[in-house]
Amino acid sequence: MNDWWSLDCRALDETARQQALARQRQLTKPYGALGRLETLAVELAAMQGREKPRLERLAISVFAGDHGVVAEGVSAYPQSVTGEMLRNFVRGGAALSVLARHLDAPLEVIDLGTVQPLRLDGVRHLRLGPGTANMAQTAAMTIEQCDAALAAGRDSLRRAAEGGAQLFIGAEMGIGNTTVASALACALLGATPAALVGPGTGLDDQGVRHKRRVIERALALHEASAPLDILRKLGGFEVAALCGAYLACAQAGIPTLVDGFICTAAALCATRLNPGCRDWLLFAHRSAEPGHAALLQALAAEPLLDLGLRLGEGSGAALAVPLLRQACALHGEMATFAEAAVSDRPA
Amino acid sequence: MNDWWSLDCRALDETARQQALARQRQLTKPYGALGRLETLAVELAAMQGREKPRLERLAISVFAGDHGVVAEGVSAYPQSVTGEMLRNFVRGGAALSVLARHLDAPLEVIDLGTVQPLRLDGVRHLRLGPGTANMAQTAAMTIEQCDAALAAGRDSLRRAAEGGAQLFIGAEMGIGNTTVASALACALLGATPAALVGPGTGLDDQGVRHKRRVIERALALHEASAPLDILRKLGGFEVAALCGAYLACAQAGIPTLVDGFICTAAALCATRLNPGCRDWLLFAHRSAEPGHAALLQALAAEPLLDLGLRLGEGSGAALAVPLLRQACALHGEMATFAEAAVSDRPA
Repeated sequence: MNDWWSLDCRALDETARQQALARQRQLTKPYGALGRLETLAVELAAMQGREKPRLERLAISVFAGDHGVVAEGVSAYPQSVTGEMLRNFVRGGAALSVLARHLDAPLEVIDLGTVQPLRLDGVRHLRLGPGTANMAQTAAMTIEQCDAALAAGRDSLRRAAEGGAQLFIGAEMGIGNTTVASALACALLGATPAALVGPGTGLDDQGVRHKRRVIERALALHEASAPLDILRKLGGFEVAALCGAYLACAQAGIPTLVDGFICTAAALCATRLNPGCRDWLLFAHRSAEPGHAALLQALAAEPLLDLGLRLGEGSGAALAVPLLRQACALHGEMATFAEAAVSDRPA
Repeated sequence: MNDWWSLDCRALDETARQQALARQRQLTKPYGALGRLETLAVELAAMQGREKPRLERLAISVFAGDHGVVAEGVSAYPQSVTGEMLRNFVRGGAALSVLARHLDAPLEVIDLGTVQPLRLDGVRHLRLGPGTANMAQTAAMTIEQCDAALAAGRDSLRRAAEGGAQLFIGAEMGIGNTTVASALACALLGATPAALVGPGTGLDDQGVRHKRRVIERALALHEASAPLDILRKLGGFEVAALCGAYLACAQAGIPTLVDGFICTAAALCATRLNPGCRDWLLFAHRSAEPGHAALLQALAAEPLLDLGLRLGEGSGAALAVPLLRQACALHGEMATFAEAAVSDRPA
């Protein structure tokens, strides 16, 4: 029996890639002079199976969940913030809300389980539990919870696909989730917390040292090595949902723009569950969180932006969308040498 | 007698800066978590003299001119391209045309002097000469030409200001102008061509070596040291116009987003003519042209983007505009902790 996430990912369209490459050579600029914007347009052409890719319709889903490991004192913020931010997302006051509005992108808000139960208009409440269990003492998720979280991400992508989304952005909210992502990164990369764990959203040096010890205990307790086992024991609801969404993007053939540290940990987990997933991942930015560099390196990812961001919430991905749209506009709308009667360089 | 460009630059509004900083501390995110976007919003607040800066109205001017030094064989493209691209700009097929359209920004196209005279609808023909003279043999510009080019940039900025522009972008087109910018950079920084000169829009290694020798000859011929003298003898019409526009921006109190290598050479020249100008310069991207790093360092500039661009034409500046607009939107529209009833971290 195969789990759904191990089914084939869509293959890139090499014909469309070649058409897009040929077009790039005809545009009224020296070939290569638009750098990353050119390779982005060609990549998107191969993903969308068309010479001129388009990115008018986005879908953004923010997955929220609480984390049992916060009981160990690993966050500078109270756990109530996860739920408070759910309300802020739907009311339009969060960073991601502002960015989504300006991108003309619908924002789906999904509650996978906060410590205190919530009922909020505009939030999709899936509630897999009152947060995860404390990974420093037991597995963070049951098998059923982990499966349900993966499926929640897949289902978000399916709704996005039905709505005609040409690009998917997964976002996350969960107090304590840099601890979770750090633990996943250590387990997936075989690295030590000393090398990867950072301040998250604002720990001081003492707080970082404590966070490292908590992660060391969790890693020693579980000794997980299979990716799904690592995800279940050390992950979180929102991280598993992101992982499921990335896998479903690749299977449906929809490009996805990966945000920062948490999302990249989920993306690495997704590529370990199904390596074909990698072709469909674009990377938005290099986070200020120190462990992000190791995750990006493992994925051979070169993010577009490096702006010292460390907010999460999909904000870095949303900030990178205009660059992707500009890449498509330049590729699709610039005149060719022939159209403009501009001289190309002598051959 | 003072030349116009040495008159005082507008001072930044420190009250507005403090108001913007205070607002940043109230927004529903950890302070600093939006990295460069936060400092950008605060800088723009100080420039615009308002707590919440706005960037709806842009003005983009592209200055074009030919260069006598092209007779030395320093470019991979024929000189006719400068004029051909003027037509491409007004017809909407150039990279900058596409980007300006998507930014909803008017694009002013200014011909400061191509080798072959042109008459094109939609182009402002100021024609200071049939291109500059060959700097490897004589001064590139006469005193009158240099003054007129500086004034052309200033006048563009004045029109932009009358139109209510909240941000100005200067762009350039001129076959051979990386040679000109490299010569200016060497003279302004006291550096050698070996350290600064690169391939421009597509020279091979042999071409780069030849370009360096041409620049060495020009530097030895003129031995210029005063910034205005350097600009006149080694510069070009479009470079001097950009320099004038940057100075006028600072005097009028309008922020300007500096593009790549050519524009940064003009910006360094502007700060040497009037150091107060520096406060009004924002830097869009790190160019692939190797000499750009030295210019940026001399200006203590940290550009927003690093995408391997080497097109010029203001394209990198246009690509960075959405980040500035997103910075303003986040700063102006995110909810405060009090508005959203979200818990801040314990003090």
